[in-house]
Amino acid sequence: MKREGKRKMAATTVYRPVRFDRVTIDDRFWAPKIELNRAVTIPTAYDKCKETGRIDAFRQDWKPGQEPVPHVFWDSDVAKWIEAASFSLATTPDPALDAQLDELIVLIASAQQEDGYLNTHYTAVEPENRWTNLRDNHELYCAGHLIEAAVAHYEATGKRGLLQVACRYADYIGTVFGTGPGQKRGYCGHEEIELALVKLYRTTGEPRYLQLGSYFVEERGREPHYFDLEAAQRGEEPGRLTHHVREYSQSHKPVREQDRVVGHSVRAMYLYAAMADLAAEQDDDSLYAACERLWTHLCTKHMYLTGGIGASAANEGFTNDYELPNETAYCETCASIGLIMWNHRMLQRRTDGKYADVMERVLYNGAISGISMDGKQYFYGNPLASYRTSVPKRGDKTMPDYYRRSDWFGCSCCPPNLSRLLASLGQYAYSTRADELVVHLYMQGEAEFDLDGRRVRVIVETDYPWDGDIRLRLAMDEPTRFALKLRIPGWCEAYELAVNGSPAADGAGPERGYESIDREWSAGDEIRLRLHMPVERVYAHPDVRHNIGHAALQRGPLVYCVEQADHDVPVRSLLLPRETELAPVFEPELLGGVVTLRGSAVCADRGGWEHTLYRTSRPLLTACAITAVPYYSWANREPGEMKVWLPES
Amino acid sequence: MKREGKRKMAATTVYRPVRFDRVTIDDRFWAPKIELNRAVTIPTAYDKCKETGRIDAFRQDWKPGQEPVPHVFWDSDVAKWIEAASFSLATTPDPALDAQLDELIVLIASAQQEDGYLNTHYTAVEPENRWTNLRDNHELYCAGHLIEAAVAHYEATGKRGLLQVACRYADYIGTVFGTGPGQKRGYCGHEEIELALVKLYRTTGEPRYLQLGSYFVEERGREPHYFDLEAAQRGEEPGRLTHHVREYSQSHKPVREQDRVVGHSVRAMYLYAAMADLAAEQDDDSLYAACERLWTHLCTKHMYLTGGIGASAANEGFTNDYELPNETAYCETCASIGLIMWNHRMLQRRTDGKYADVMERVLYNGAISGISMDGKQYFYGNPLASYRTSVPKRGDKTMPDYYRRSDWFGCSCCPPNLSRLLASLGQYAYSTRADELVVHLYMQGEAEFDLDGRRVRVIVETDYPWDGDIRLRLAMDEPTRFALKLRIPGWCEAYELAVNGSPAADGAGPERGYESIDREWSAGDEIRLRLHMPVERVYAHPDVRHNIGHAALQRGPLVYCVEQADHDVPVRSLLLPRETELAPVFEPELLGGVVTLRGSAVCADRGGWEHTLYRTSRPLLTACAITAVPYYSWANREPGEMKVWLPES
Repeated sequence: MKREGKRKMAATTVYRPVRFDRVTIDDRFWAPKIELNRAVTIPTAYDKCKETGRIDAFRQDWKPGQEPVPHVFWDSDVAKWIEAASFSLATTPDPALDAQLDELIVLIASAQQEDGYLNTHYTAVEPENRWTNLRDNHELYCAGHLIEAAVAHYEATGKRGLLQVACRYADYIGTVFGTGPGQKRGYCGHEEIELALVKLYRTTGEPRYLQLGSYFVEERGREPHYFDLEAAQRGEEPGRLTHHVREYSQSHKPVREQDRVVGHSVRAMYLYAAMADLAAEQDDDSLYAACERLWTHLCTKHMYLTGGIGASAANEGFTNDYELPNETAYCETCASIGLIMWNHRMLQRRTDGKYADVMERVLYNGAISGISMDGKQYFYGNPLASYRTSVPKRGDKTMPDYYRRSDWFGCSCCPPNLSRLLASLGQYAYSTRADELVVHLYMQGEAEFDLDGRRVRVIVETDYPWDGDIRLRLAMDEPTRFALKLRIPGWCEAYELAVNGSPAADGAGPERGYESIDREWSAGDEIRLRLHMPVERVYAHPDVRHNIGHAALQRGPLVYCVEQADHDVPVRSLLLPRETELAPVFEPELLGGVVTLRGSAVCADRGGWEHTLYRTSRPLLTACAITAVPYYSWANREPGEMKVWLPES
Repeated sequence: MKREGKRKMAATTVYRPVRFDRVTIDDRFWAPKIELNRAVTIPTAYDKCKETGRIDAFRQDWKPGQEPVPHVFWDSDVAKWIEAASFSLATTPDPALDAQLDELIVLIASAQQEDGYLNTHYTAVEPENRWTNLRDNHELYCAGHLIEAAVAHYEATGKRGLLQVACRYADYIGTVFGTGPGQKRGYCGHEEIELALVKLYRTTGEPRYLQLGSYFVEERGREPHYFDLEAAQRGEEPGRLTHHVREYSQSHKPVREQDRVVGHSVRAMYLYAAMADLAAEQDDDSLYAACERLWTHLCTKHMYLTGGIGASAANEGFTNDYELPNETAYCETCASIGLIMWNHRMLQRRTDGKYADVMERVLYNGAISGISMDGKQYFYGNPLASYRTSVPKRGDKTMPDYYRRSDWFGCSCCPPNLSRLLASLGQYAYSTRADELVVHLYMQGEAEFDLDGRRVRVIVETDYPWDGDIRLRLAMDEPTRFALKLRIPGWCEAYELAVNGSPAADGAGPERGYESIDREWSAGDEIRLRLHMPVERVYAHPDVRHNIGHAALQRGPLVYCVEQADHDVPVRSLLLPRETELAPVFEPELLGGVVTLRGSAVCADRGGWEHTLYRTSRPLLTACAITAVPYYSWANREPGEMKVWLPES
């Protein structure tokens, strides 16, 4: 197979993530979440797709005047659901789900047109307008998710039905778009198909899919600008097409020239993920360098402490450097997931703990905050502070109260995105190449690898992220030499490492975030890594004006917040004295079992304020108890105030 | 005249503001602003009215398809301009302006319909829809401003042309609206006509205008709700008419039952001003009590330190208690002016310094911040912090930078509102009744009063607000007994008072904010009041979460802010050490001559932050100079950051 040849060639410099179905997670943090996703979230999401008409749209029997009208991006929600369900099936057999998928795939296949085209909106609602508004209407985005779904279903089940549909569609797309005569030099306003085509290439070994993905990435932002030409063809004012709209879709300049994250954050993440994929597949250092520049800009100017990105609701994306307001932080759940995807890809080209640090930060905080403890409700945005909603909307019947999760959304990209993340979580924990086994994330369970043809198993015991004590045992048929690389998280300032009871760290500290032990390993070898996990105060860059004079609490990979449910005094008037120490306490009954941080703080006293809004004497500060809970777990109790950043007193 | 009878009856309990044309202001604070208003702002505003079609709309020659379409509230801008120009004419003769007014009034009179109706939009654009959407379309609001303009022009010039137009219109309105058979039980969605009708009554002595104004106030918020009935008649969904829409226009319940400020802030101020007028005219304690409840709620829960009100742009109005965000503070200039109008009226019923304190706070800060130093640019909103504008708007061609003033607005209510305030400023300084002369505000100049038929002049020498030393000299033909009441501002914690060189305060402190000296006064008597005016730090109620841990700077009536133009370090990262003392320095060349506050502060240091957005060590604080300027003077230099509330370190 060509694919094997390709992968082998790159194998000396490029890592390969472990397949998630070769990882078993049986800890008390992730395993219950993954099971909830399988047992509750995935079935509930299917019901929502069904209720809202997303499934039935594939029947293609919509008639003018009928409600609902199949929306331009509905197909992508169903595709992501298929991907999540397929991932789940790959680790946990479920004949009913298997049958449900088969039936749905038959329905989807029936909607494919003669020429391979497949889009419920354009086929049924406006067939005359196919490919006329790539900028806004998500046609190739939907195709990309369909391709990802097809790859996932094939990899999970070995069934080729949806894969054939996806290949036919991709082949047709390849005839329409490109630089050849008569082809449209277009690309999608919402990136997604690019990374999907790389996946399709990896699964099928067909280089044309890689080339098509590469074309979409390289064509982006070139002049004459495709979205201008397309708008003119629609008879629209070119004036509408401004620099900002171009930045919105990262098409303001060719991708290799980009060095600032701009525009819609999910779009950006999917593009950068594809760029990282292509840099790996094509061994392209200059494309990787562009990724690296964008990464540095994002992580030093635009990322919330929770790993959330995209500060503004107005463009669902990036604004000015250091513009990180807490209460209005948009931080779309999909953007968090996209950030994980991108960093995971960066990590396959170069083992650098900075990527894994970001991946871990967002995974444990701003991504999984997106789903409720019962697995049925979602955040679209993930703010870092919440107070009583203050702005009454004209025409609203109900007085809003606090920020809450929703059962589903009109634009429901986030729910199935969370499902596919959780159902395939294991892949993020390990990478390998011929002579290396790299551990990025620590999760209790087992994983199995092929290292240059030899099978190696790793058995992990840990209570991470609640505790930093990690034991890894190795199992293999015969002694094997390889470098075991263990990530030392960026948050960790002290650790001990031992192999079979003997200290194994050379004292030089980790190299680019990893301790490497290169030796001949045998079955039964035990590695013990103790990551010290004190409660830390974190401070933001002084240009983040929203956090001047404030500190946040972090322990291990977890960012904490204070919620009203744990406090008698209003959370809004809590201050953290500089000298206060907070103690971690595991509370098994709370929020599914979490380590809280407890201690004493101060609260601005309301005494003497009965009749005035302003006065010239400073408010008195009275001592009070404070309890911080992991950010990801907020908004699972009675609605109330929440904040991540606390003023210091 | 009935009016005289009425006024006499109430004279023992009700104060009368001095007529502004009997006050001369010749200080270095207000006099240049008033002259700029006369020489620059008023002519420029006329040009804007002309350029935008607001003047020509009175020609009534609009034809369908023509642009611009006379807008439903255009008439009110022209009316407020007439009011401002008339006020100016009353203090400073100007034949050209006089002629310009005459010409405009002829034009306006020509637009009056047979039945007295006068509205450029409804007459020309949709004559069939007269009085069909009182809730949204400002018809009676425009009538109110026309009435105010007419009263002002008549009082300034003695010419009755516009007054007759206004009376005819008011008489017609009186036939349409009321509780009689066949009358509409309506009232305007935007209050204004109520207070205008009280003015018309006071000028003409015709009680029917007072009764009509009273009707509009009392009918508001009654069931069945007029806006519901009206919407049903338009064939609109009653569902659109929610509790919030009602609160938006303060029609959620009868006004006497209201105790919380809600909805659109300008609407609210104009209503409350009318309620205070009616309480005075009708000697109505229960209506006054409703005003008092609303006042307490506003001033203890909803007023910015600058006197700005209406925190939210979404409803141009009030939100939750203590919801006072700084950067997004809406604080419409018109709402500030409305707040002055309301408090001025409250003060005429009862001499209580708390009203004058609010009036002074908003006048010196959040109202006059609305106009630029060159008299040509305006703020619609008056935020308390400004940073680089962060949210790119889709479709915008230009990258926004900082919050700036504008030459004019599509909805241009604020510019002529500022003009009429400045042109009639003297009226706010003094009130009288038969045996009392009350000084509310201190402005260098002269004022003339009739006290029970005797003429008394007051000559004031002071450099207020830059200095708290005030000398008042009295002039009169013969010795006269009256109580001279001098306001001791709420911000003033120490003062000395002397009459002809001898201490005159009894040491018991002011009564309800005023020192009263009741004696026989003679020409040449001199009163000296020294208000101590130290630099103060002000703190906000702990429930104002936006200001927890922050202090603001105030000296005398002026609230200060820090602007980027005075600092090398970014204003966003300044902190004010608790022990720092700032010193007042008069700087004649700066911003037209202002007292700045100078001293040392600290700034979060950027050292060590080059490659990271977060870290576990607290940012170092380095000493730096700080200069605060009066809030009203901000945004008159190069655009940059600004903040009123500073974190304390």
